[in-house]
Amino acid sequence: MTSVLRFEPDAEGDPTKLAYTFGGFEPLVSVRPGTTVSTWTLDCFAGRVRSTADLPSQVCDPRFLNPQTGPFFVEGAEPGDTLVVHFHSITPRGGRGVSSTVPMFGALTTTPFTALLHPPLPERTWVYEIDLQAGVVTYDALDSPHQIDLPLDPMHGTVGVAPALGEVRSALAPGDWGGNMDTPEMRAGTTCYLGVNVPGALFSLGDGHARQGEGETCGVAVECAMDTVLTIDLIKGGPPTPWPRLEDDAFIMTTGSARPLEDAFRIAHTEMVRWVAELTGLSDMDAYQLVSQAALTPIAQVVDTSYTVVTKVEKRFLGSPTVMQGMHARWRA
Amino acid sequence: MTSVLRFEPDAEGDPTKLAYTFGGFEPLVSVRPGTTVSTWTLDCFAGRVRSTADLPSQVCDPRFLNPQTGPFFVEGAEPGDTLVVHFHSITPRGGRGVSSTVPMFGALTTTPFTALLHPPLPERTWVYEIDLQAGVVTYDALDSPHQIDLPLDPMHGTVGVAPALGEVRSALAPGDWGGNMDTPEMRAGTTCYLGVNVPGALFSLGDGHARQGEGETCGVAVECAMDTVLTIDLIKGGPPTPWPRLEDDAFIMTTGSARPLEDAFRIAHTEMVRWVAELTGLSDMDAYQLVSQAALTPIAQVVDTSYTVVTKVEKRFLGSPTVMQGMHARWRA
Amino acid sequence: MTSVLRFEPDAEGDPTKLAYTFGGFEPLVSVRPGTTVSTWTLDCFAGRVRSTADLPSQVCDPRFLNPQTGPFFVEGAEPGDTLVVHFHSITPRGGRGVSSTVPMFGALTTTPFTALLHPPLPERTWVYEIDLQAGVVTYDALDSPHQIDLPLDPMHGTVGVAPALGEVRSALAPGDWGGNMDTPEMRAGTTCYLGVNVPGALFSLGDGHARQGEGETCGVAVECAMDTVLTIDLIKGGPPTPWPRLEDDAFIMTTGSARPLEDAFRIAHTEMVRWVAELTGLSDMDAYQLVSQAALTPIAQVVDTSYTVVTKVEKRFLGSPTVMQGMHARWRA
Amino acid sequence: MTSVLRFEPDAEGDPTKLAYTFGGFEPLVSVRPGTTVSTWTLDCFAGRVRSTADLPSQVCDPRFLNPQTGPFFVEGAEPGDTLVVHFHSITPRGGRGVSSTVPMFGALTTTPFTALLHPPLPERTWVYEIDLQAGVVTYDALDSPHQIDLPLDPMHGTVGVAPALGEVRSALAPGDWGGNMDTPEMRAGTTCYLGVNVPGALFSLGDGHARQGEGETCGVAVECAMDTVLTIDLIKGGPPTPWPRLEDDAFIMTTGSARPLEDAFRIAHTEMVRWVAELTGLSDMDAYQLVSQAALTPIAQVVDTSYTVVTKVEKRFLGSPTVMQGMHARWRA
Repeated sequence: MTSVLRFEPDAEGDPTKLAYTFGGFEPLVSVRPGTTVSTWTLDCFAGRVRSTADLPSQVCDPRFLNPQTGPFFVEGAEPGDTLVVHFHSITPRGGRGVSSTVPMFGALTTTPFTALLHPPLPERTWVYEIDLQAGVVTYDALDSPHQIDLPLDPMHGTVGVAPALGEVRSALAPGDWGGNMDTPEMRAGTTCYLGVNVPGALFSLGDGHARQGEGETCGVAVECAMDTVLTIDLIKGGPPTPWPRLEDDAFIMTTGSARPLEDAFRIAHTEMVRWVAELTGLSDMDAYQLVSQAALTPIAQVVDTSYTVVTKVEKRFLGSPTVMQGMHARWRA
Repeated sequence: MTSVLRFEPDAEGDPTKLAYTFGGFEPLVSVRPGTTVSTWTLDCFAGRVRSTADLPSQVCDPRFLNPQTGPFFVEGAEPGDTLVVHFHSITPRGGRGVSSTVPMFGALTTTPFTALLHPPLPERTWVYEIDLQAGVVTYDALDSPHQIDLPLDPMHGTVGVAPALGEVRSALAPGDWGGNMDTPEMRAGTTCYLGVNVPGALFSLGDGHARQGEGETCGVAVECAMDTVLTIDLIKGGPPTPWPRLEDDAFIMTTGSARPLEDAFRIAHTEMVRWVAELTGLSDMDAYQLVSQAALTPIAQVVDTSYTVVTKVEKRFLGSPTVMQGMHARWRA
Repeated sequence: MTSVLRFEPDAEGDPTKLAYTFGGFEPLVSVRPGTTVSTWTLDCFAGRVRSTADLPSQVCDPRFLNPQTGPFFVEGAEPGDTLVVHFHSITPRGGRGVSSTVPMFGALTTTPFTALLHPPLPERTWVYEIDLQAGVVTYDALDSPHQIDLPLDPMHGTVGVAPALGEVRSALAPGDWGGNMDTPEMRAGTTCYLGVNVPGALFSLGDGHARQGEGETCGVAVECAMDTVLTIDLIKGGPPTPWPRLEDDAFIMTTGSARPLEDAFRIAHTEMVRWVAELTGLSDMDAYQLVSQAALTPIAQVVDTSYTVVTKVEKRFLGSPTVMQGMHARWRA
Repeated sequence: MTSVLRFEPDAEGDPTKLAYTFGGFEPLVSVRPGTTVSTWTLDCFAGRVRSTADLPSQVCDPRFLNPQTGPFFVEGAEPGDTLVVHFHSITPRGGRGVSSTVPMFGALTTTPFTALLHPPLPERTWVYEIDLQAGVVTYDALDSPHQIDLPLDPMHGTVGVAPALGEVRSALAPGDWGGNMDTPEMRAGTTCYLGVNVPGALFSLGDGHARQGEGETCGVAVECAMDTVLTIDLIKGGPPTPWPRLEDDAFIMTTGSARPLEDAFRIAHTEMVRWVAELTGLSDMDAYQLVSQAALTPIAQVVDTSYTVVTKVEKRFLGSPTVMQGMHARWRA
């Protein structure tokens, strides 16, 4: 990593200078495959929720939620290629993160889609102190004096490219273009693979979380601005990447984002069965059997416009094959 | 209806001159509220499926499916207004309609979302003769000599405006902007109400069906080009229209489009409960009770990217109130 | 119908003398196939909700909800046979029906399964006057002076046999044994077909509704005790009846009960495709196509432990074939 | 653990001597709370699938699938109490386990509920060698020479009591009575808590898995007979246990079993929010927030009649409170 491109989003004070959709924004910078980028991202509230007195519905403009840094134009990327994004580091920018309940949003409340006759749950904001040295974020209850240290585990909730079919999708939505997948697996040391739908791929990222539970139950993680160093690379041609995939030192991972949640599961698992078959030479039925006994399947989130499931298989169970032309190993080194 | 605007889509032979998304296309024509428009639409295959030998996956380009006539810029339309579209006539343009099974598409097959390990079902195309005089479409079985006359009941599968939040959505998708709702209720004599999300509303329509079963089970109705006469009008301000609504001489109707299908039901029914409360002065709980005993609830489709449910209540059960400022009565006359 | 068996349930005053499950109760009476039975059923509250002051959670014992009249042992019925139930008449016993909202029950509220953090919606009871002569039930709002006449349309919400695999299922549940399907199609003039799972079938019925909206949105219809005359008949052997089917003068109908609601749709539609193929000799793909254009698909209910969808196809579209050995025609005459 | 009750199921050679439902069978033995039991269970195929040539649909009787050891009558157990089951050891009985694909069963195939028009996937059987010393099970591909060692991780797929409301449920079904939850968390060292619905609880267990992937994707784990030592204890009264809960040295866990899968998630997470509030004194909204950041949420299975989700929170994040009167700590010691 001898040279690093610094990309400074023109974001302080002017939320209209950031991207709020995947697709629909002109690229701000062009990068050659293999470029390492140092940049930063705003939190999902564009920094407007700062204290327990700040309620999202009062301080945020719904048109400017979940701002993304980018889009990056990746030189040479064409539909059918696979974009490679390796995260070297993801570091909370400030000493604090925030979370909140948001009216009609979350897994355990009536929403615009699971539309019921209940009034919304209460809107509340929690502030977490972040201690980078100790590696903890501190939960501070609102209604009683409890404080609890939870492990710091920074990640990006939103990582994606422009969608296919000319669509432009809100940064609040996840799908086959990536987007708001909200999986804790998107941490430093992980490589993300995304199918390219448009020339240049138009990659963006945002929605940093100091940590997040699996399911992101109330809809909001420990949100914070992030300093992030990542490498953007490209695999030309090859088997397509229909849904986002991840790889870390131990696991290959597939994702599916859909409703109902079992469809997200089905996507992630059919993707894994086919990927395992491709990596090992197993027949589809043999791969189906192996995945059935070997997979870990954490739920990522059940709160966004589609729900996300992750499926993980240890690479050692597959004979530690070369995955995606060795991209993870190369950039991890 | 003394003056009628003729709008001729520049479509013959050049599918790139039509719109394939809601949002994302510049308006082609500007209309004042209250304008009656005479126009026509291509079928969902852009006319490329013409005989039982034409299979969609072979003759169609997936980027150019479900072409829309429009967008129409409606003068004075602003976010929060309600667009009014009354259908005076919807008439099949040619003497034939087509249907087909499409690989990985439909309610009774594995799809990219309900992702299973089965190979696709067979791809087949059926051709229907349309007899406008007799009011029938003739089903002609492929594997045996059966012919069956079904009632002609022309409708538009796709009617919508540009979505909110800067999104651009494929004409294959339904949602709160309308789009590919595929309900047989969108027939001549019906008025459709759509919430406006962007200046000018950017209204388009397409996807004519000579008839369609409820559920659109195989994913494709009796598809044909249509000659359509409609009035485009506008309600400024007033209560918002969060999801598309319809009205005919007997019924008010709400729609919901979501997955799973029960969420589509919940949307349509909460919308109906609130609309009935607003029209009658009933409390929400009283309206909930009345809708529970009075509603008809046909499924529109279970095949598109979201599923659509329609809920209908007879206006006479509500004391025949004035609905949407009397728009249906005015344009029906 | 020269001879009619009168069956008097031993129900007045002692709810423990009725059946609350399908399976799990000894038969009370044995009938020969072809027997016409005159009987009556209690309402779903066992008659305990009588005025707007009676709230189900206060006056009902949850162990004694939805009492069934039966079980009837049908002589000669064996697993694999099809039970035939033709409804000659279904008549409200009293001059009044009741409905209510029940805490944590209904389509537009948090429930024990769609478990959210909201407190329950208010519990309220509505009383409907029933005028058999005029053929109306009168809705009477609680919070304002509205009265609305709705058409009387009596039906049985619960009709079924003992389940397979030794299961005993609550009368609140629907499934492939029938049970609490809550479809308005179960009215006088309709014939219901049920697959037999145990010797004698063990048929029961209950849950009379003076009328019900499609979806049964709040979870409770216009509930009343019913005087019912039905014929119980049997088809030995033949193609199995995996899910309950119905037939009236114009339509054949299939049902599916499952969650999510699209699975109920898929069951009902695959059943219809296969039944149409069997009745007409069409290939499966031809039948799939025909059903796609011909089906009506009303939602029955989205409130019970599984949700129910009905699919209807007009018999004239199928060449008016002989259905189920002509059972409907025979008993309708 | 000074005295251990040996319970020998009368199972060899006579599958009708075992239980195939929860509820519906007379108790075989009565135990006092605090009794440690040593027993064994047959595999889900009742031992009839022994080689790759044995296909379940050919060698098994569908009425005798998933045999359970029990029921145990727990002295003094009354509705509202909580049954405690601590697993001391779960050890594969033989040197081999089997898995298979079963027609119309599994997460990635058409099923009787997700009913599509596809023919079933191929039925195949895999045999796994089990090496207790090495702690591995060996996957042996059918269509190529791959062999892969996977960690041995024995568990019981089915653990439960008689259901409420007089229901009798197949041992293939999971629900609030426990049953076929198929979670790998049900391993030695774990304590399971089950709400009691009938006098004596009527506890049974079975369906041993040498290991299982999360999701149990093809529907069948590495199935084997098990030697199991467990303690059965009882908590009289106290807060109810509406859904099965688990506890190990590090985590408390809740389960939900429902369709669609998001409802299983909602059950598990509302249960966890309320349990965390009860254990810590946090308000419901504070507990909702904490669970949102702290929970792990593995999918257990997406193949049975309802789907199961598990939610886990580390006890140290809650201040290591006394859980369920210290039952886990007592029996773990």
